[in-house]
Amino acid sequence: MEPPPNFEMVDVGIYRSGFPDPSNFDFLDSLKLRSIVYLCPEKYPEANVGYLRSRRIRLFHLGTDGNKEPFMTIPKDLINNALSVLLDIRNHPVLIHCKRGKHRTGSLVGCFRKLQNWCLSSVFEEYQRFAGAKSRIADLKYIEMFDVTSIRQCLLGIIYQYHHTCGSQVRRLAYQERS
Amino acid sequence: MEPPPNFEMVDVGIYRSGFPDPSNFDFLDSLKLRSIVYLCPEKYPEANVGYLRSRRIRLFHLGTDGNKEPFMTIPKDLINNALSVLLDIRNHPVLIHCKRGKHRTGSLVGCFRKLQNWCLSSVFEEYQRFAGAKSRIADLKYIEMFDVTSIRQCLLGIIYQYHHTCGSQVRRLAYQERS
Repeated sequence: MEPPPNFEMVDVGIYRSGFPDPSNFDFLDSLKLRSIVYLCPEKYPEANVGYLRSRRIRLFHLGTDGNKEPFMTIPKDLINNALSVLLDIRNHPVLIHCKRGKHRTGSLVGCFRKLQNWCLSSVFEEYQRFAGAKSRIADLKYIEMFDVTSIRQCLLGIIYQYHHTCGSQVRRLAYQERS
Repeated sequence: MEPPPNFEMVDVGIYRSGFPDPSNFDFLDSLKLRSIVYLCPEKYPEANVGYLRSRRIRLFHLGTDGNKEPFMTIPKDLINNALSVLLDIRNHPVLIHCKRGKHRTGSLVGCFRKLQNWCLSSVFEEYQRFAGAKSRIADLKYIEMFDVTSIRQCLLGIIYQYHHTCGSQVRRLAYQERS
């Protein structure tokens, strides 16, 4: 089994990676994905569209060129939409991917970690682990500046709870103010 | 919340990291750990022992100096014992850690990925992501040479199944020959 490049589990029901190609489809089958968040602006390749169709996996195509100094950043609406997808367990298990699984995926996961109340140094450490030598200061700034309060407000309407309500696996995100 | 250094989720119910200190205890609480696999030979620190006791977390102390060229390797029995702990869901959620979460933890996770039938290049990619510049050829050799067949035989007696038997979350490891 061959996972896509830069593959890892982010949290229960949420995975991240670089671009999957047909050699990764067997592995993706093992994840029993319900949806994919695809962050590049380019059209999704035919082979991947066919795979998703055959497995009834929903594609959330939220394309962006990423954070590039000095003037280009991931639009706020796009990141909020992506987070709403991630936080809605009806979409789980979900795979986030861009091209390399470093910058756009890393920025989105960074914002997700802020929602989970991770301290910034730990968020950055994780970002660096995946970006390696390709780490971008523009992404780190973006993550730092990301406003958790506004998305929390947006998300109040979403009832969020992990599937896993059995035994010790019960976990909720810290922002779940409604319970 | 401050996760321990090099923290990541390996799979449902399995986490990895470097050495947690008291500043990480709040975060560990959020994982609702049932056990810890500790891979250093040194005595577990008082503060950590106290934390585990207060949370009724079981400590599996499987100490090793790791793989060091030319003659020192992680004993086969130790790695098999550690894998047995990881694969027994009664121990989940479980955190694996050593000092830095790079070499000993990386070797154990590498062997675990082989059990999951990951191809070697993906196993190595993941190892490198956590080890970074400190990557050790001795660990890569150890992972490559690790004999999956023998541990599979040992594990046949363990009925292995993830907690999460609800909906699309049903996942079993590929070696589960009994079902």
